[in-house]
Amino acid sequence: MAGTFAFAISGATAARKRNLDLFGICAIAFIVACGGGIIRDLCIGATPPAGISNWQYLIVAIIATGLTVGLFSVVERLNRPVLFFDAVGLSLFAVTGAEKALHFGHNGEVAVLLGITTAVGGGVMRDVLLTRVPVILEKEIYASAALTAAAIVVLGNYLNWISGDWVAIIALIVCFTIRILALHYHWNLPTPVNRKNKLTK
Amino acid sequence: MAGTFAFAISGATAARKRNLDLFGICAIAFIVACGGGIIRDLCIGATPPAGISNWQYLIVAIIATGLTVGLFSVVERLNRPVLFFDAVGLSLFAVTGAEKALHFGHNGEVAVLLGITTAVGGGVMRDVLLTRVPVILEKEIYASAALTAAAIVVLGNYLNWISGDWVAIIALIVCFTIRILALHYHWNLPTPVNRKNKLTK
Amino acid sequence: MAGTFAFAISGATAARKRNLDLFGICAIAFIVACGGGIIRDLCIGATPPAGISNWQYLIVAIIATGLTVGLFSVVERLNRPVLFFDAVGLSLFAVTGAEKALHFGHNGEVAVLLGITTAVGGGVMRDVLLTRVPVILEKEIYASAALTAAAIVVLGNYLNWISGDWVAIIALIVCFTIRILALHYHWNLPTPVNRKNKLTK
Repeated sequence: MAGTFAFAISGATAARKRNLDLFGICAIAFIVACGGGIIRDLCIGATPPAGISNWQYLIVAIIATGLTVGLFSVVERLNRPVLFFDAVGLSLFAVTGAEKALHFGHNGEVAVLLGITTAVGGGVMRDVLLTRVPVILEKEIYASAALTAAAIVVLGNYLNWISGDWVAIIALIVCFTIRILALHYHWNLPTPVNRKNKLTK
Repeated sequence: MAGTFAFAISGATAARKRNLDLFGICAIAFIVACGGGIIRDLCIGATPPAGISNWQYLIVAIIATGLTVGLFSVVERLNRPVLFFDAVGLSLFAVTGAEKALHFGHNGEVAVLLGITTAVGGGVMRDVLLTRVPVILEKEIYASAALTAAAIVVLGNYLNWISGDWVAIIALIVCFTIRILALHYHWNLPTPVNRKNKLTK
Repeated sequence: MAGTFAFAISGATAARKRNLDLFGICAIAFIVACGGGIIRDLCIGATPPAGISNWQYLIVAIIATGLTVGLFSVVERLNRPVLFFDAVGLSLFAVTGAEKALHFGHNGEVAVLLGITTAVGGGVMRDVLLTRVPVILEKEIYASAALTAAAIVVLGNYLNWISGDWVAIIALIVCFTIRILALHYHWNLPTPVNRKNKLTK
């Protein structure tokens, strides 16, 4: 829930900065928080998606909207905690997404891809609706951290050396650590074109 | 069908203004008319979605394209009727979307969210494909009217005081009235940033 | 597979030109190659979609990314072969998409619409993620070729004069020929607004 809340806050903040109205802010907050999970549930055939059948997500989105609109100065000062919870959410979503896909009897590739989708899908939908190229495709170690977590879950499930709970905890810690370190040291994945531009200078 | 037609006309008009070719105009007309219903059907597991298995929708989209391309000056003069039928379509889509979700045995939240999705999903997809921030997220009482209609359907279904048909009629009238009044008096939901801008002036 | 590869190369090239990072390029390559098929599978209720449950697609996307990043000058010179394989992919995707929908017991309209979706869906998702109006909606005989192929499959299936394999081969050849001729002679569908602009000059 802390992760969902951080995702909703990040959505509401982005929406507010683009001058959306109250409904728009709430819709974007909800989509960031639930969009990834909804795509995952559609892909594994779990209808209706948990994101829309569970009141909690909607309430979290409404609270996030209220906070962002009413106490914007507070939310702005909360930038660091929000990034912290966003990393928590990223880790949790990637792990639970991968676990849910495995639980529905799908293979490892489905689990890895849907783990990433759960973690980053909402953010991508936010960027598409606000008509900007999704941040996670341009830079930052974000989806890669989710990929690592989902891969650990799948690997742990195949090897079956330790219980699933321990695998999940390890995956969470690894993903969270990668993300926080990437934020702190401004790690980015290489972007090939930039490298080429440097060469041509 | 009048609602579907109005939606298709609005899609074809927007597509034509962006210099799309004949196929593009028809595709956007079809997506505005059926996109919301397709998402709803995917979410409740009703495959294949009615929008793509039913010839009528496609024919409506083709007729709307033909009219918009062949008789553009007529369509432009029809701006008021189109807004009128658009409000009819909005009400009908919100009510039938909520009813279909309830009919498939889903809970009230699913019905409300999918009622809104049915009503506004096509328009959002149009705006995303034409790369602009969806109008309904920025201003205008549009999704809010759909929300009201869907909520009335769900509430009427729970209370069960009067027959479902009467509930649907009341929801339709309320939604239609809100939308027409909002159009007439240029009602908008507050956008928090604008309010802040005024304060800082 | 040649078609999938051409689609993945076209996605990776477009992503590279927009300065995406390695993950972004690979994600776009994967989406162009599999996006259309995933939407089709969701619409016919074939979960999980083949695109995400089959390792081959992911590996093709990774190889395409590697080639585009490592040997960009080679890929750029391959522009003609890529357009050739893209036409092959377009034809194959349209035919197999329509066949798969028929195979799942859906009607002709579903098959035609999903044939087109399989063929062009990935490209549309690429353009939406890179925030540009989808090329196929603006000009070029592209979706129309896919439409023709899917229509031939459905018609052949109804008439049942010759075996399904022959129908598929004819549909492939017709679609491929239309696309190559359209590329060679720069055929476009008429765009109504341009015509009007000329009249007003």
